[in-house]
Amino acid sequence: MLHWLRHYRRQMLAGDIGAGIIVAMMVLPQGMAYALVAGLPPVVGLYASIVPPLLYALFGTSMTQSVGPMAITSLMTAAALTPLAQPGTGLYMVLAAQLALMCGVLLLVCGVLRVGFVANFFSRPVMSGFTIGAALLIAWGQVEALLGGSGLQAPHLPSAMLGLGSLIVLLLARTHLAPLLRRLGMAAAAADVGARLAPMLVVVASIIITVLFDLAGAGVRVTGEVPAGLPSLNLALSQAHWKSLVQPALLIGFVIFLVSMSAAQTLALRRQEKLHANFELIGLGAANLGSALTGGMPVTGSISRSAVNFAAGANTPLASIITAGLLAVALVAPTGWLALLPLPTLAATIIVAVLGMLELATLRTSWRFDRSDALALVATCAGVIVLGIESGVVLGVVLSMGNLIWRASRPHIAVLGRIPGSEHFRNVERYAAETIPSLLMLRIDANLFFGNVEAVNVHIEDKLAAHPQARHLVLVMTSVSSIDTSAMYGLLELNEALRQRGIGMHLAEVKGPVMDRIVGSELAARLNGQVFLSAAKAVETLARSDDDIHI
Amino acid sequence: MLHWLRHYRRQMLAGDIGAGIIVAMMVLPQGMAYALVAGLPPVVGLYASIVPPLLYALFGTSMTQSVGPMAITSLMTAAALTPLAQPGTGLYMVLAAQLALMCGVLLLVCGVLRVGFVANFFSRPVMSGFTIGAALLIAWGQVEALLGGSGLQAPHLPSAMLGLGSLIVLLLARTHLAPLLRRLGMAAAAADVGARLAPMLVVVASIIITVLFDLAGAGVRVTGEVPAGLPSLNLALSQAHWKSLVQPALLIGFVIFLVSMSAAQTLALRRQEKLHANFELIGLGAANLGSALTGGMPVTGSISRSAVNFAAGANTPLASIITAGLLAVALVAPTGWLALLPLPTLAATIIVAVLGMLELATLRTSWRFDRSDALALVATCAGVIVLGIESGVVLGVVLSMGNLIWRASRPHIAVLGRIPGSEHFRNVERYAAETIPSLLMLRIDANLFFGNVEAVNVHIEDKLAAHPQARHLVLVMTSVSSIDTSAMYGLLELNEALRQRGIGMHLAEVKGPVMDRIVGSELAARLNGQVFLSAAKAVETLARSDDDIHI
Repeated sequence: MLHWLRHYRRQMLAGDIGAGIIVAMMVLPQGMAYALVAGLPPVVGLYASIVPPLLYALFGTSMTQSVGPMAITSLMTAAALTPLAQPGTGLYMVLAAQLALMCGVLLLVCGVLRVGFVANFFSRPVMSGFTIGAALLIAWGQVEALLGGSGLQAPHLPSAMLGLGSLIVLLLARTHLAPLLRRLGMAAAAADVGARLAPMLVVVASIIITVLFDLAGAGVRVTGEVPAGLPSLNLALSQAHWKSLVQPALLIGFVIFLVSMSAAQTLALRRQEKLHANFELIGLGAANLGSALTGGMPVTGSISRSAVNFAAGANTPLASIITAGLLAVALVAPTGWLALLPLPTLAATIIVAVLGMLELATLRTSWRFDRSDALALVATCAGVIVLGIESGVVLGVVLSMGNLIWRASRPHIAVLGRIPGSEHFRNVERYAAETIPSLLMLRIDANLFFGNVEAVNVHIEDKLAAHPQARHLVLVMTSVSSIDTSAMYGLLELNEALRQRGIGMHLAEVKGPVMDRIVGSELAARLNGQVFLSAAKAVETLARSDDDIHI
Repeated sequence: MLHWLRHYRRQMLAGDIGAGIIVAMMVLPQGMAYALVAGLPPVVGLYASIVPPLLYALFGTSMTQSVGPMAITSLMTAAALTPLAQPGTGLYMVLAAQLALMCGVLLLVCGVLRVGFVANFFSRPVMSGFTIGAALLIAWGQVEALLGGSGLQAPHLPSAMLGLGSLIVLLLARTHLAPLLRRLGMAAAAADVGARLAPMLVVVASIIITVLFDLAGAGVRVTGEVPAGLPSLNLALSQAHWKSLVQPALLIGFVIFLVSMSAAQTLALRRQEKLHANFELIGLGAANLGSALTGGMPVTGSISRSAVNFAAGANTPLASIITAGLLAVALVAPTGWLALLPLPTLAATIIVAVLGMLELATLRTSWRFDRSDALALVATCAGVIVLGIESGVVLGVVLSMGNLIWRASRPHIAVLGRIPGSEHFRNVERYAAETIPSLLMLRIDANLFFGNVEAVNVHIEDKLAAHPQARHLVLVMTSVSSIDTSAMYGLLELNEALRQRGIGMHLAEVKGPVMDRIVGSELAARLNGQVFLSAAKAVETLARSDDDIHI
């Protein structure tokens, strides 16, 4: 806790201040925009960007994480709350804070129980598919606000012009602003960071245009009055909706952790920092409790903002503290000008922000590397779009695990033979190796667990059927690094089945940790054969005993 | 399909007929009892024991599987239907058949899509915990019927006497009948099978007692009229309840497959038979469709009946066909006598039947073998009892997978050194092996996948931190049999992080299938180092290049 503060050095300050200012200018439009995605008044997104990062700085372990509202969790908040209350009502706001509270408690409990490993339930391709699906849902959800009126069917012309204009400017800025700044003499890194401020500039410009041409009077929707002042302590809760929020809180809490970890991990690796998943859970839990108590919404570490924070030179969480301070100042200052922020422009910033989440590189890579990963990516993306964001989370876990179990159900098992004149044993399909008909040596190339226990037994029986003369089966365990209870039972059943048929079952080259397990187990007690230190030793012993029998 | 019929030999007939008769006598009380567990009239359990095994015989691959109503699926049927209809009503019966229909379609679709591997989502300890929890729920649910009146609070004396009497007789038969029959000169196997007929004898005796003492008149509840005749084709469906049945059908379909596969696999291994999971899905799907069309309920392979079928000498599905035929005859014959079957006795047969599911051996074994498996067992059992049977299924999958991912998050990584004077490299913690400060060799003892990718990177960074002089990292991949897209990304990130710090990353002893994947991937293109055939080769090359640098 606050480890970074005790080791703070003066030369870190410039980077932290610069990053703090830049991220503040990024958060201002983003926080308001994501509050809108969640169906909340824009100011809630600003509230949720002040206290949460302060609490995260106290407990979290990532140095450059920027905690606040984020596109996917905002979409999930909307999905969870719209069945329970009308967006814009007081109840809806109370429920948003309550959801943050429940997510916070859940994350804290998970952190205390040290179950940080749950972040590993999503494979990366599935995470990519989930993100792309969510980005498309979010972008589609903004079309109506972008065009005004009733969206595509009947757009409101001034709104549509402003929205599409903002969109085009932002898209051009995305591709051309950084090169332009570089050509103007800025360093490459600074230019990239500078380009991230385009949304803030577009927002300011759109407010000016709105005022100049009285667009609000022409029917362009604007954010409306943003109450000045800091968020106050808010403990209003709805007893009636606890139960309906449990499942969304579980799913959103999981996604908060997933998104935050994936943001933090990439940056931590680059900085040679060590993340502690369990402290991250506690940091995110505290941040969400803080958000709940200041009338906010569920918050998480933002991939895009954290990357900017990092790139802008943030060294410690002080950068986030500076960001939070600047936002607080902005709220204390007269906020009247924010009331005229046109919603079409805000919609454009959302669409451009989530476009950054639409990366297809993972699909391309996994298509070449592992087709089943690519299919899981596409299925998760389709699932999010068709079934909705909440079912998409569950589907993502199911597909990650399904892929894992499916792979496990096709274990690789090699028949081994001796390389002539050596003590080396190799796969007979890849090498010219000698075998003895009465002795079948199999190398199991998988850790043994419940997911492959039946498949391994079936494979072994197949190999035995192809070697009808075998009277000894030797399982070479070089590649088996672990064995669970189900697998021990599986080997025990194989052992009994082989015993009935007069076939001995032996183990060879069992690794230390696996042997420690087997010693003292039923398998060791009932093994119809021996445990050999090496495959060579097994052949030597069993071939000799066979000769005895033949004579 | 019907492979067994084409290879039928006359000497199989005696075994099939004997087993067919014995299982029929076992099914008669069991079928009725399990229909009661499901909240259905007893005759439904008999209907569900006629057509389903015939259809399973057509499509299934297990030779000795006995398909029909089963305790756990009956409990799940009751859990699914009681929120939708009053037990005993016509709607309830229609919904039971509809549930069987939906399970059947689901299983067929899964079979056609060849997703038989889904049976591997439950670890054995979790399956054991699930079974124990279900058995306790079922037994507890029968206490009221066993004691009559309103159960424990106010039992009905004649009912309680009959119920507890039946229970005591059945419990004594369970432990003492087989030894008694053996002492009377029966062969051990025959005695074991004979003892399984105790429920049938107790049921017949209880009917006689009920008639003699007019227990029905004294207030003992009896089954009531069992309509004579075979089940008729029944296609009544409730359109209104489709949606509410989808989730239960998914869970029950999964359990049908799990239970049936676990029954069939044990027997198949003993008989050296080969099961095809996908054909099993189709066989079970057809059986459930047949059950639905004849006014039945969800059916599955029964572990206890299949074991008796096997022990009684069944060689082929002809035994099940004979069983079905005998049940059909029993229904065509006058069924008036069945009307007086006292429910307390039926409750006693259910309680004794599920007692057989209460085995604690798996708990004992897994407690010694793998503590986390034992905890998963206990948690699943508690979950079934506290949260109910449906949530128990989901919890079982979550705990199986959670255990897997938790284990994966603690990978074993060994620092290797050279055994002096040899080309062998071993864990420096277990062997006196030589290392070179500038060269860190790590053997990853795990397949690389999304579940351990972060943990592996964190471990490697830890080892690097402990070896600050290392300028080359060699990952020895002897134990890595597979690598997924997430893991490839993980290695890529590690590679980039190390490159920034001027540390080379090399691979050695990569297995064929893993190398096939890596070649042509981004990892191969961007690897800041080499791929060596052997660890010895890596040391030779890198130690020499290091010398060069030093000079």
